[in-house]
This record gives sequence, C-alpha cells and structure tokens, in this order.
Amino acid sequence: MKRFLSSLLVLFLLLPCSAQNNSDETMFRTIYDHSLTQGQCYENLTDLCCNIGGRLSGSKEAEMAVQWGKKKLSEIADTVFLQEVMVPHWVRGDPEEAKVLLSDGSIVETHICALGFSVATPKEGITAEVVEVFSLDEVERLGREKIEGKIVLYNRPMDPKHIDTFHAYSGCVDQRSAGASEAAPFGALAVLVRSMNLRQDDLPHTGVQRYHEGVKKIPAAAISTNGASFISEALKTDPNLKLHIKINSQNYPDVLSHNVIAEIKGSKYPDEILMVSGHLDSWDTGEGAHDDGAGTVHAMEVLRMMRALNYQPEHTIRCVLYMNEENGPMGAVQYAKEAKEMGTKHLMALESDRGGFSPRGFTFDGQNDVPDKMQKMVLQWKELFEPYHIHIFDKGFGGVDIGLLKDQNVPLIGFMPDPQRYFDYHHAPNDNIDAVNERELELGAAAIYSLVYLLDQHIKD
Amino acid sequence: MKRFLSSLLVLFLLLPCSAQNNSDETMFRTIYDHSLTQGQCYENLTDLCCNIGGRLSGSKEAEMAVQWGKKKLSEIADTVFLQEVMVPHWVRGDPEEAKVLLSDGSIVETHICALGFSVATPKEGITAEVVEVFSLDEVERLGREKIEGKIVLYNRPMDPKHIDTFHAYSGCVDQRSAGASEAAPFGALAVLVRSMNLRQDDLPHTGVQRYHEGVKKIPAAAISTNGASFISEALKTDPNLKLHIKINSQNYPDVLSHNVIAEIKGSKYPDEILMVSGHLDSWDTGEGAHDDGAGTVHAMEVLRMMRALNYQPEHTIRCVLYMNEENGPMGAVQYAKEAKEMGTKHLMALESDRGGFSPRGFTFDGQNDVPDKMQKMVLQWKELFEPYHIHIFDKGFGGVDIGLLKDQNVPLIGFMPDPQRYFDYHHAPNDNIDAVNERELELGAAAIYSLVYLLDQHIKD
Repeated sequence: MKRFLSSLLVLFLLLPCSAQNNSDETMFRTIYDHSLTQGQCYENLTDLCCNIGGRLSGSKEAEMAVQWGKKKLSEIADTVFLQEVMVPHWVRGDPEEAKVLLSDGSIVETHICALGFSVATPKEGITAEVVEVFSLDEVERLGREKIEGKIVLYNRPMDPKHIDTFHAYSGCVDQRSAGASEAAPFGALAVLVRSMNLRQDDLPHTGVQRYHEGVKKIPAAAISTNGASFISEALKTDPNLKLHIKINSQNYPDVLSHNVIAEIKGSKYPDEILMVSGHLDSWDTGEGAHDDGAGTVHAMEVLRMMRALNYQPEHTIRCVLYMNEENGPMGAVQYAKEAKEMGTKHLMALESDRGGFSPRGFTFDGQNDVPDKMQKMVLQWKELFEPYHIHIFDKGFGGVDIGLLKDQNVPLIGFMPDPQRYFDYHHAPNDNIDAVNERELELGAAAIYSLVYLLDQHIKD
Repeated sequence: MKRFLSSLLVLFLLLPCSAQNNSDETMFRTIYDHSLTQGQCYENLTDLCCNIGGRLSGSKEAEMAVQWGKKKLSEIADTVFLQEVMVPHWVRGDPEEAKVLLSDGSIVETHICALGFSVATPKEGITAEVVEVFSLDEVERLGREKIEGKIVLYNRPMDPKHIDTFHAYSGCVDQRSAGASEAAPFGALAVLVRSMNLRQDDLPHTGVQRYHEGVKKIPAAAISTNGASFISEALKTDPNLKLHIKINSQNYPDVLSHNVIAEIKGSKYPDEILMVSGHLDSWDTGEGAHDDGAGTVHAMEVLRMMRALNYQPEHTIRCVLYMNEENGPMGAVQYAKEAKEMGTKHLMALESDRGGFSPRGFTFDGQNDVPDKMQKMVLQWKELFEPYHIHIFDKGFGGVDIGLLKDQNVPLIGFMPDPQRYFDYHHAPNDNIDAVNERELELGAAAIYSLVYLLDQHIKD
C-alpha cells in the first residue's frame, strides 16, 4: 500500500501541471528536490574545468568545449547542431613580466597579464616612467606633454559602495576597454589597468580591450590591485620610478568555431522558442568556472532536468551555448543574424553569465516596453519563488550575448545570483572549480528551470 | 562653494534622522556606504582568527578572546564590563585516530574528532565491529542483541532538499547530541556520528553531545562524511569489518570565564535596551571564523559604527559577547538569570550566529504573540531593506543565547545570512578566515545596524 501511494505521488508530481490546482507550487518543489539531490551542474562543471580548463575563443580548448557541449547535449535533446562562427584568435604567449624600478636601485616584481587583443612589447620589453590617471578624460587633460614616452597606469578602483557589484564594474571598465586607444594618440608607450577586482590581492584580471580604428596599437595589460596600489604609493615619493614590462601576445587570423544549439521540441508550439543560454568560451588564465562555466552548465541542466522529470514542454526549449562572448561577441552576432534571416520566434531569451553563486532573482531587458511586460508577468509569480529565496525581479541588464536579440523585440532575462564574490574571480587565475559551491550552483539551475516552466505553462494566459 | 555644499551634505547625513522626511532611507545609505568603505568587521575577525584562533570555553584562548573583546569595546562604548560565568573545561588532547580494519587484512585510515564532553577511549583504543544505524529509534529497535560490544555509526545524512540548511541540521543533530546516551544502555562501546555537513569531504565536524544522567559514558566522535560513506559501503560486502578508534579527551572541573557586555547609553531611554549579540567561544579544531567570529564582530561593529557616524541612540544599545554557546550555554544562562534578577528591560535581543555570508534577512522568535508583533513592525520597513537585498522577514529561530531570554517576553531576532555554505565550515577545521568574504561579512553588520537604527527611532511610534 505504501509503495502504491508513493508511486501515485511520483505520478502526481510528474503530471502536466496545468491539470492541477496547486500545480505550479508542486512543480517548483519537484524541480528543487531534483536539483538538490540529483542535479548535475557541479559534475558537468567539474568536468569542463578540470578536463578542458580555460577555453579562449580560437584555442584548441575552445573547440574541445564545443565538442564537449555537443556530446553532452546529444544525450538529452531532440536536436543538437553547431552553428558556424568565425572568431578571433589571440594568444597570450609566454607569461608576462613586470618590474617596478625604484630610483634607489631596488626592483619590485609585480603581477600583470595582457588584455585581450593586446599587441606584444618589443622582445626586450618596454621600460619607461609611469603616469597615473583615474579616467580616460584625465589622459586628454594631461595631453602629450605628460603622456608621451610614458606607461599610463589607469588606477580608478571599483566603487565598493554599490550593492550590485556589476554597477561598480560598469563604472570603471572603460579604462580597460578603451584605455590603450585613448592614451596612444598622446604618445603613451603602453598602458596598465588596475584589475576590476574589489579585493586587494596579487591576481591580475584580464579582459577585452579594443584598438580604435586608425589608432596606434600599444601594449595593454591588467595589473593586480596590490600592484596598482603599490605603484600609486611609490609614485608619491618617487615620481621618476620606472616600469619594465614584457608582453608576448600575438593576434592570428580568425578561425572557424561554433555556437552549440540544442532543443527539446514543443508539443503545442514547436516554432515558438524559450531560450536558455550561457557562453562556452572563457578567458585563458583560469578555468572559467564562474565565467561562464556556470552559465553553460545552467543552460544545459534545464534541458536535462526536463528529461529527467518527464516534462514535455508546450514550446520549444532551446539551449544556446554561445562562442566568443569574451573577446567578441561573434557567436552572438551570428546567432542573432541567422535568427533574423530565418524569422525565428523567441518568446524569451535568458542568459546566465553572472556566476554560480546563490540565486537572487532575474533582471528584465529589451527595447521599448518589452521588459516591462515580461517583468509584470513574472512578478505575478513572486510568491512562488519566495520559499526558494528568489526575490529580485528588477529591470536591468540581460546579458551580452542575448543583448544582440534586443532589436528583434525579444524579452531578455538575466539570471542574477548573489553578486558579492563575483569580481573576486572574474577573468582571473582563481576562477576555478574550487571557487564554486555545489549547492549554490545547482540552485541556479533550479531557479532558471522554474521560471522557464512558468513561462512555458502560462505565457499564453 | 562645492566644499560648503558637500560639508552640508555630510551634516545632513549625520543629523538625527527623525528630523527629516526621507531620513531612514538616507541613514540606510550612510550606514551601508560606511560599512562598505570603512567597515572593520573583517579586520577584527582576521585579528581574532589569526592571533587567537579556536577558543573553546575553558581554554587559554577563550580567556584571550574575552580580554580582546573587552579591549576592543573599551575603545568604543560608554561602559564595558565582564560578567562572571562558570564554564565547562573539556580538552580534546592528542589528535584522534581511526582505522577501518577490513576482513581481507587491509587497513583504511579515516578522519574523526571527539564530540564535546566525550570521555577518552582506553589508551590502547577501542577495536570493535560496527553497526550502522540511521536514527536513535533504530538503536532501540535493534536492542542489546545487535548493539552490545559494537561501535555504533549514526549515519543519517542532512537532507539536502531544505533551502534553509539549518532545517537540515535540526533534522539530524539528535544523532550527535544524544547518540552516545541512546546507545550506551544497549552495551555499545562507542559511537561515531556522520558529520553535519552537506558536502562529501574528509573533514570531521565536531559539536556538543550530552551524557544523560545515570547512563554509562562511552566515547563519542564525529566522522567525516567521506569516512561515514566509506564504512557504509564497505559494510555491504564486509559486515564483520572492525573499527579501531582512539580518543584522548578529558573533562576538567569548571573554570571561571566571562560574558563581555558593552553599552552606548541611550539619550532618552537609558534603561531600555536594544541588544546585539554573538558568541565569543568557538570549537577548537578551526579558527571559529563563521561560528561565531562573524557574529562577534557583527555585534561589536554596530557600536563602532554608531560612534563613527556620530549617531546618538535614544535607547541603550548593548553589545553582548556571550561565552560558552558551544558546549553550554552557561554564558546565556547567567546573563538571563542576572537580567531577570535586575529587571533589565530588553526591547529586543538580536543574535548573529549563522555565519558571515551575504545577508538575507531576519527571523523573529519569542513566546506567545511577541514574535508576531516584532515581525509586523519590521515588515513595515521592508521596502527600505529591498535595495540592500534584504528580503527575509520570517518567524523562526532567534539564537541559542538570546533564546534564554524568551520567558522574559523579550522579542528575539536572528540575523539570517545566506545559508548555503554554512555547513561546509560549521565546527570543522576549515572554519577559518579564508572562508569569509570581506564584503559579505561587512554587509551583515550594515543590515543589523540598519534594523537597530529603525527600532531605536521608531519602536515607540
């Protein structure tokens, strides 16, 4: 009798939930129970981090990740295909070197790493005095007189007062993305940029930078927060100290790579798509565990859990593992282009690209009133999320990759985990599996699947 | 002019906030800005962890912590005093040993640590067969026939399905606290208890256990989750395997120790107390960073920030650093006893004893309708907390120490940080400063101070 009752319970849990009254609540519990007892995010992420590791676009590891994603998704989805994308191929080369040469003859080694697309220094490196600035504007104000022949150190720190640390990131990332292009016209020899890190430590955090058209390409590197602070202090008493830096990176021609796209076909509306996504590529200095191994396994896990729980979606659930978010986003450009050409109907596109921390909520993005409508819809389900500690349903950034779908009127949703620790690891050598907590990671997939489930059931209501 | 305006702004921020309209909102921002730029929780916790370390009641380190707390609070508070408490003095002694002796002659070492108050094994250790059980009841069902002469392994794991991991803890901690007393009457030689840990790893998590009156005292230890799972698996094919364990702990007579109590006197209602608290003592195997170094520095920080921000409270703000929460709670018993004798009027008592993770909210406890009233009051301020990601305002456990004030009708508030990682470290050798994120820790103090501020301003409304 007991066994019969528990079989009945299982059957009940797996029934199409629209047939029931408290069905959404029951389905949430089913998803979370499964996630916390049989979730495979952490196992998949461990595999990706430990057996492939860092996977910068154009690298052998990035292609291994493509094949890995395809294989994993083939075991789950109705269809899996690779979408061809030409991606940049930039290679760091031998480890960078940096030394502070103080006027008293002493030498202090410090930690730098080249920024994406940076050209190399000459083989013997660059040795020059340093000018410290706190903004792009300041470079312009100082002009050629102060900048020429120098290494420019951009040293504006992230503002720790933001509760959402991504706002602190937005507030200084211009130094990294445009610092070299801003300083080169005034005769700078190279630039160093204070790492986008809220902690004081010795880890340089890399990231992309762009050379503006027609501007001389000068070497650009990130320096650890400790290194940047040390130089800043030293300059106060030793304004003529010099820096010696060596960067060995190289830009190669674009190479063929792929987005990985997998689907579970919708039973009622196969041509209408609810999309979950993350990006497969990562920076090269760590394992890319939080950025964006976490998002990759979150997106895959939604499909896997649907199968495991025998959930047949009404709409097609598409998982997109984008290539080349970091120094691109060519994967996103290609995906959006083909979607437009084919008239693909996305009811929603969600991206997980803020790490694998304890889930907090979702942010809604899109053009015109698109995000408002989606936010309003999701807010009616707020109470369902409450017992699972999901409480943020704000308008805000969706994601770099899905952002390219904005002009196709797609409602964009960014998954938002707790943001306090993200920039401890972002683009840094410590973004490794040991920085990820298994429960926090699995809970992310549960939160995303819960939302996708609600949209699949009720978006037509 | 600009400087004048900014001075005015500072003045405005520091004004008693009842004088203003959006004053509470402004004060929240002031508290958080200060906390995230000049907070001293992390610095204090580093000092406590690295220069004193684990501080079990009765130890030299526990008394060092008392003096440390007194000194730190003397720099801040109007008054600081030590409240005398007699506390147990149990000493672990030499590291424990545990070996699994398989029938094929092979030996596997595993990781155990004695539970609080455990007696030692004989010098040569105990070697016996193992009986695995999953509850106290099961011991009774098995009875003397199966238990006598054996080592009992309590192996019921924490239920991972709880979102609030403290519920998972409550669901199995009876094995640890009463396991030895339950098994001894049936002739068990010793007990091992699966660590209260949601991860599989090699760290044993200690904690208190009690010998019931009149029951034979048998040795009791925690075993790592890996160790417990290994033995469980091995028993399936080798039911006669033996365990060899050695425990070297000793119980000594009670010693004199102290609660540390500090106050900033209220300007209007000096005899009415808003209390913030944590406990100074910790287990001995790690540094007690999350349990409860975090709560200790949170409570101290509320007073420090009040001074730094020139906030003069209307009610007396009392910081209590309890002694002997872990294997007590004699500090809490003494505090409650004296409070009752002296008729101390607590308007509220808050405890931070769930670690230094990203803040989530508060839980309300007390007898009769006391928690409902406090919950209702705080819920009216919900929107003030929202921008700071504080969203849980539920009825629930307050704290072990403040719990002793329940029958004096005191409204009890438990500070609730994100609970996912707590049991990775709880009572384990890895509960060290490197497991604490500075921002997450400081944000806890900001959340607590914000609530104390609101109560100080509006509890009379």
